[in-house]
Amino acid sequence: MVMSPVVNTYPLSSYTFGTKEPKMEKDTSVADRLARMKLNYMKEGMRTSVEAILLVQEHNHPHILLLQIGNTFCKLPGGRLKPGENEIDGLKRKLTSKLGANSPALVPDWQIGECVAIWWRPNFETIMYPYCPPHITKPKECKKLFLVHLSEKEYFAVPKNLKLLAVPLFELYDNVQRYGPVISTIPQQLSRFQFNMIAT
Amino acid sequence: MVMSPVVNTYPLSSYTFGTKEPKMEKDTSVADRLARMKLNYMKEGMRTSVEAILLVQEHNHPHILLLQIGNTFCKLPGGRLKPGENEIDGLKRKLTSKLGANSPALVPDWQIGECVAIWWRPNFETIMYPYCPPHITKPKECKKLFLVHLSEKEYFAVPKNLKLLAVPLFELYDNVQRYGPVISTIPQQLSRFQFNMIAT
Repeated sequence: MVMSPVVNTYPLSSYTFGTKEPKMEKDTSVADRLARMKLNYMKEGMRTSVEAILLVQEHNHPHILLLQIGNTFCKLPGGRLKPGENEIDGLKRKLTSKLGANSPALVPDWQIGECVAIWWRPNFETIMYPYCPPHITKPKECKKLFLVHLSEKEYFAVPKNLKLLAVPLFELYDNVQRYGPVISTIPQQLSRFQFNMIAT
Repeated sequence: MVMSPVVNTYPLSSYTFGTKEPKMEKDTSVADRLARMKLNYMKEGMRTSVEAILLVQEHNHPHILLLQIGNTFCKLPGGRLKPGENEIDGLKRKLTSKLGANSPALVPDWQIGECVAIWWRPNFETIMYPYCPPHITKPKECKKLFLVHLSEKEYFAVPKNLKLLAVPLFELYDNVQRYGPVISTIPQQLSRFQFNMIAT
């Protein structure tokens, strides 16, 4: 038999959640965001962003931690790499900025695992594809999603303007309307893993 | 940088396609199929099926080989394991039965690679999920999709009642209406791979 890679998941209740100063979005509209993207592209070339899939379990089913902005929009923790920055280091930096405590001793030792998906933005538009479309020689963004293996106990400091939600795979699946194309197909990308649900 | 696993893909034109005797579907309706599944479940327990993603390239973009039945329905080559059969051996057997020449010397040496997705059928119904839904203790089927690494040259013998199509990822993506939930999300599952498009 072919063995599936095993991912340990711990109950949501084994993690502790505090708050910290707000992290405001850099843009207040999609148009602003795309304009800033264009400006950065002219200075630095293709944007590379890295995002984390943080898994916990409840009722014996995997859940993903999502940051909610306002009442509807959800995103994975992560962000843009600095020019030349290593993906692993950049994702750790972003995770600490988004979810780490201000006291370094409390910041999780982020274990960055498997890359599970890569998305491409061919133009300065919102649409992304899970491949670089034919005839696109200069994509504008490459976004990589990584599994991050959490330890049994962690402390997360959530910016005051955001909510951290644990969303079950069955809620994400086939729900592109609510979560968008990237997040709603995470269940398919995780299907090859075997989740070792550890009760503590 | 995290390296993506590399998959060599060769042009469609480097493969040769012949025909062989028809392989008829065992069932003529969805109801028949589900009834046969139920009967087999009572005899043998959960059904395990294995399917192959065979990749080729055209115009520098990956394409997947699909078997078309009639004018609309497409499926991946593969099928049901025998009770106790090893997944790799079973997939090789099924690929030879579906696409191998009658002369053993011409049958490809199937190189079964990474498992890219696992789907679960909780009930004797058509719907499947990329996870075993909570509270389902006795799923009726587990379907595993594997990448199969093709050599530069191969001969495929296609049953006379079927067509073998090379379908580009951009055609599959976001096209659940035509290809169903399993095949239409293959582009997302393959996004983490780097395709080494070899021109011959």
